[in-house]
Amino acid sequence: MSKVIIGVDLGGTFVKTAVVSTEKKIIVKDSRPSNAEGGPKAVMDTMEDAVRDLLAANGLTMDNVLAAGFGAPGPMNWQTGIVFSPPNLPGWKDVPLAAEMTKRLGVPCYVDNDANVACYGEYWLGAGQGAECVVVFTLGTGVGGGIVVFGKLLRGIDGTAAELGHLTVHRDGRKCGCGSLGCLEAYASVTGMLRTAAEGWDAADTSLKAETGNDPSKLTGKMIHAAAAAGDAYARFVFDETATWIGIGAASMVNALNPERIVLCGGMIAAGDMLFDTVRRVVRENAFEVPAKRCQILPAGLGGDSGVIGCAGCALARYEDERGA
Amino acid sequence: MSKVIIGVDLGGTFVKTAVVSTEKKIIVKDSRPSNAEGGPKAVMDTMEDAVRDLLAANGLTMDNVLAAGFGAPGPMNWQTGIVFSPPNLPGWKDVPLAAEMTKRLGVPCYVDNDANVACYGEYWLGAGQGAECVVVFTLGTGVGGGIVVFGKLLRGIDGTAAELGHLTVHRDGRKCGCGSLGCLEAYASVTGMLRTAAEGWDAADTSLKAETGNDPSKLTGKMIHAAAAAGDAYARFVFDETATWIGIGAASMVNALNPERIVLCGGMIAAGDMLFDTVRRVVRENAFEVPAKRCQILPAGLGGDSGVIGCAGCALARYEDERGA
Repeated sequence: MSKVIIGVDLGGTFVKTAVVSTEKKIIVKDSRPSNAEGGPKAVMDTMEDAVRDLLAANGLTMDNVLAAGFGAPGPMNWQTGIVFSPPNLPGWKDVPLAAEMTKRLGVPCYVDNDANVACYGEYWLGAGQGAECVVVFTLGTGVGGGIVVFGKLLRGIDGTAAELGHLTVHRDGRKCGCGSLGCLEAYASVTGMLRTAAEGWDAADTSLKAETGNDPSKLTGKMIHAAAAAGDAYARFVFDETATWIGIGAASMVNALNPERIVLCGGMIAAGDMLFDTVRRVVRENAFEVPAKRCQILPAGLGGDSGVIGCAGCALARYEDERGA
Repeated sequence: MSKVIIGVDLGGTFVKTAVVSTEKKIIVKDSRPSNAEGGPKAVMDTMEDAVRDLLAANGLTMDNVLAAGFGAPGPMNWQTGIVFSPPNLPGWKDVPLAAEMTKRLGVPCYVDNDANVACYGEYWLGAGQGAECVVVFTLGTGVGGGIVVFGKLLRGIDGTAAELGHLTVHRDGRKCGCGSLGCLEAYASVTGMLRTAAEGWDAADTSLKAETGNDPSKLTGKMIHAAAAAGDAYARFVFDETATWIGIGAASMVNALNPERIVLCGGMIAAGDMLFDTVRRVVRENAFEVPAKRCQILPAGLGGDSGVIGCAGCALARYEDERGA
């Protein structure tokens, strides 16, 4: 009997679910509202329904399932599968997600953090495929990270590794949400880009003023990207600054890990060459020549599905690890 | 017959040699002038003599030797064992060190870069023993690094990984010897400390002015350390600044890798608490709480012998790897 693995990527708004074969073929994907406002039980009901619906619609049963992997926003304990208290999941406090879902589904269930599963997804089936060392930056409201070395996800001794948004890139720089100063995330995230835009706002000659009624708090990352692409010089400066900071973070990882690939995930990668040309140039300028030449810097190969596919990949790897495969 | 491994750490001034048993006992160590001015052949003669002398003086022969490891200043190719052109080894250009020493000694010989072997030495027999993930910073004229993860030295895809002196810690900051701006090495090395001292020199009220005839180019790291320890406020400021930068680099590695230990090597660690108190505080202030609490920050357990012991350790690991042990 052919076996499949389930991936479930749990966000505050949507639950994404995928069924992947052990031969790495994506059989089916699904996205539905997570019903987060209903608390942990409602969300777990949603996830269980999604899994059962997808299997049934594809002529599969739980007997076909080898294991299931769940990606959740941190903080969590990936080994016990307990999710502590993610800010965008109301009512969640020390939820034993792995144990609960194992009971509901009757197959081994594993939990990992969302940036790590995105990294593993890109390594397993995306832009990192075939590489032994892959670094992922997830660029969104914050900056997350994932690291695969020796073909394994680097979780660190407590599971907190790869917090690449919290590399210090500018001592005594901007205050970051984490409380420290000068973290990459304070500059290279969408939030960081909006801060950069607001800093020079008053003196700026930009179409963004008309678009926002001269209120920089109304800015969005998409507005800046669109205006930059349309030739607005200020928007372009703000976008390039953000890309430069991403490049500086990437260059540090090139020097630290000498990876084969760096993969960028998140909405910002829709900017394409406008983003990647700058990131690649900054890496060439800031990292050593040999590792800078080696490292390919690529957009996510799985688009918005890095996470859900990575959930399945992580589950398979952990299932096999436990059995000494 | 009991087997031993040879470690040889090759520097511009001294060749250090050690004989270590496969049970990790250091049998004997030796240090002698490297005769670098005589070029590659003279240095290789020195290394061969040292190995043969040490074995003979301890009732051992080449038949007792399983393998030999050589640590050399980069750049090099660790896989082919070719050393390209280290600045402090005159006349060296693409020297096939591993092949030459294998021919001379008749045992498998391996070459690795000096910061990596120091890291491996600390992991194998020093302050990193028993940990699975160890990060080493070697603090000297420059700042080198080494990373052990999953119990293995992380060399990267081209062998250039762990260039931790070239993490960007201050965008558009000091020009580094590598050509980039704001690298950790430009602040956290002894050279960086001397630059910090020189920057504030004119306005400083410090005993170092009398000691150097008011010529900051005569300063040494030891002078700053001694004056700081004796209560000179300016020297203490300069020392603390340097320790703060080391802490900032360490905090980035704590967030990136969630290691069990960070080990500091090099002359600067003689400052003891004056160095470590600041580094530990800065890590607590700048890294996430869980990994910062987890990570012990320790001085090298092998003192100046991390490198030579690590050469033996790396050779054993590579010998066993090749044989699938």
